[in-house]
Amino acid sequence: MKALRFIDNTLALADVPKPAAGDEALVRVTTTGICNTDLEIVRGYAGFAGTLGHEFVGVVEEAANAPALVGKRVVGEINAGCGRCARCRARDPRHCPTRTVLGIHSRDGAHAEYLTLPAENLLVVPDTVPDEEAVFVEPLAAAYGITEQVEITKETRVAIVGDGKLGLLCALALALESPRPTLVGKHPDKLAHAAARGVETVLLGDAVPSLNRSFDVVVEASGAESGFAAALDLLRPRGKLVLKSTFQGNTNLELWRVVVDEITIVGSRCGRFAPALALLENKRITVADLVAAEFPLADGVRAMHHAAERGVLKVLLHA
Amino acid sequence: MKALRFIDNTLALADVPKPAAGDEALVRVTTTGICNTDLEIVRGYAGFAGTLGHEFVGVVEEAANAPALVGKRVVGEINAGCGRCARCRARDPRHCPTRTVLGIHSRDGAHAEYLTLPAENLLVVPDTVPDEEAVFVEPLAAAYGITEQVEITKETRVAIVGDGKLGLLCALALALESPRPTLVGKHPDKLAHAAARGVETVLLGDAVPSLNRSFDVVVEASGAESGFAAALDLLRPRGKLVLKSTFQGNTNLELWRVVVDEITIVGSRCGRFAPALALLENKRITVADLVAAEFPLADGVRAMHHAAERGVLKVLLHA
Repeated sequence: MKALRFIDNTLALADVPKPAAGDEALVRVTTTGICNTDLEIVRGYAGFAGTLGHEFVGVVEEAANAPALVGKRVVGEINAGCGRCARCRARDPRHCPTRTVLGIHSRDGAHAEYLTLPAENLLVVPDTVPDEEAVFVEPLAAAYGITEQVEITKETRVAIVGDGKLGLLCALALALESPRPTLVGKHPDKLAHAAARGVETVLLGDAVPSLNRSFDVVVEASGAESGFAAALDLLRPRGKLVLKSTFQGNTNLELWRVVVDEITIVGSRCGRFAPALALLENKRITVADLVAAEFPLADGVRAMHHAAERGVLKVLLHA
Repeated sequence: MKALRFIDNTLALADVPKPAAGDEALVRVTTTGICNTDLEIVRGYAGFAGTLGHEFVGVVEEAANAPALVGKRVVGEINAGCGRCARCRARDPRHCPTRTVLGIHSRDGAHAEYLTLPAENLLVVPDTVPDEEAVFVEPLAAAYGITEQVEITKETRVAIVGDGKLGLLCALALALESPRPTLVGKHPDKLAHAAARGVETVLLGDAVPSLNRSFDVVVEASGAESGFAAALDLLRPRGKLVLKSTFQGNTNLELWRVVVDEITIVGSRCGRFAPALALLENKRITVADLVAAEFPLADGVRAMHHAAERGVLKVLLHA
């Protein structure tokens, strides 16, 4: 089968054997999304080698342990735990110390014709949610998962720093809970996307100083040191700073401000899929206009280069 | 009156006018404690110039707004807010943006014969708590205040990194809530202090790796980058890292680990005085053996030098 692989520091479309299901479910992939993490892996982050991709929709072809799934259209949680350790027994395989992660850590990913995942990772996609929306479940879960970690009510003043794909999704997801979150970014065209959905937008450098120390919750989704500093500036004393970005390497920051202002920093990686899927099913959020381009899997290398261009939103692959 | 002042980057005992009470209370200082923050100010931290000191016991001599306090022995909360801003109206003067802080920011401190503070900052000390214990209320409040920010139950596994004055107090305070917290430090003599009170102690480098990822809550009280890294190592995924130290300047850290392990970092500066005073009154905690030396205020410069020596615990001054 065809697979978009990163091996020996080289990104290439390869022809590899179709995986065997074994104890897991075999999924025929239909659509995948290119995430910034894919781009970062190609830049050397995380030391991953194998098939890239972790945002997918597909159809189950085999599932020895869950035959009812066969033929169903699914999305899938990307972390697979060992099933035996303390974290797995606490139903938290996302933090299993020996977990594998689809297309990120010790497990071939989704930019391929087939993938395997444990059947319990899969969720059936309702017929009313097309592939082009369902493929957003993973990043939308990561964005909406913030609301399970930090209390956000109609009274909470929320800002998001970073207007990339993740920042936009965070703004749209949090707009469901807070009446008018503020998205701070560098790209007028991306900000316009959010402004069209009732998100307050601010161009970085513009009016930002007047907003300093006025937000209860600030989400850092830029992945830049300067974004972290801007987020700290926006936050009120005793506020909560949600970290969504996996910064590469070490980060240099004014940690003393966290102590003096008694800030709480909440590291936030993944989220639950079911609530995100429900948002799409109930049309509470629309994501289709975040798609910038679609490519066949065979053009995966070109698609990755396009996704890496400045200002490009979500790029999809069709297997 | 005599005052231990840091002016023009020089620490010296000075003769200055006795302060006027004005709208505040005038306190005749009897005993003060030298905190690491005093030592850091002398190293240039915080850009403070004036009389040092914020841990004190004294007797109220004047209090126009609270005449019942006159003649009473008191300790005092060190932050004084403007009384009018949003934070002050929310009864949180500790985070008032224009606050003054005794001996730390825009307000002369306690290593002097007299100080002034708003009367509402003062708490009367019960007769059963001697000066040499009451002077610990401020740092003990900072240590015990952790229990108001992070839930600690009998089941919570707690570690403290750093066996200086603050780390020891944190270990003793948290031992009241968690059956046997673990103190990780570099100084066998200081660790022995904590071991004698039922705290598990570990010499840094020793058995630490075997403890990695096993604690629910880790308190960083070393103020060193290496301490922050050690604290991250000890913490389980989704654990809570309490930052007590005001690191100087920028800190270089692996922030991505906070995201991947979904850690919560809780900045923690001050605590409420009343619970700390109750701990001393009820003899739930003993602090007298943390006193390393006592000096007259007139020998304040010598006392500061002694307090800065490696391994020295609390140094007291008597006015």
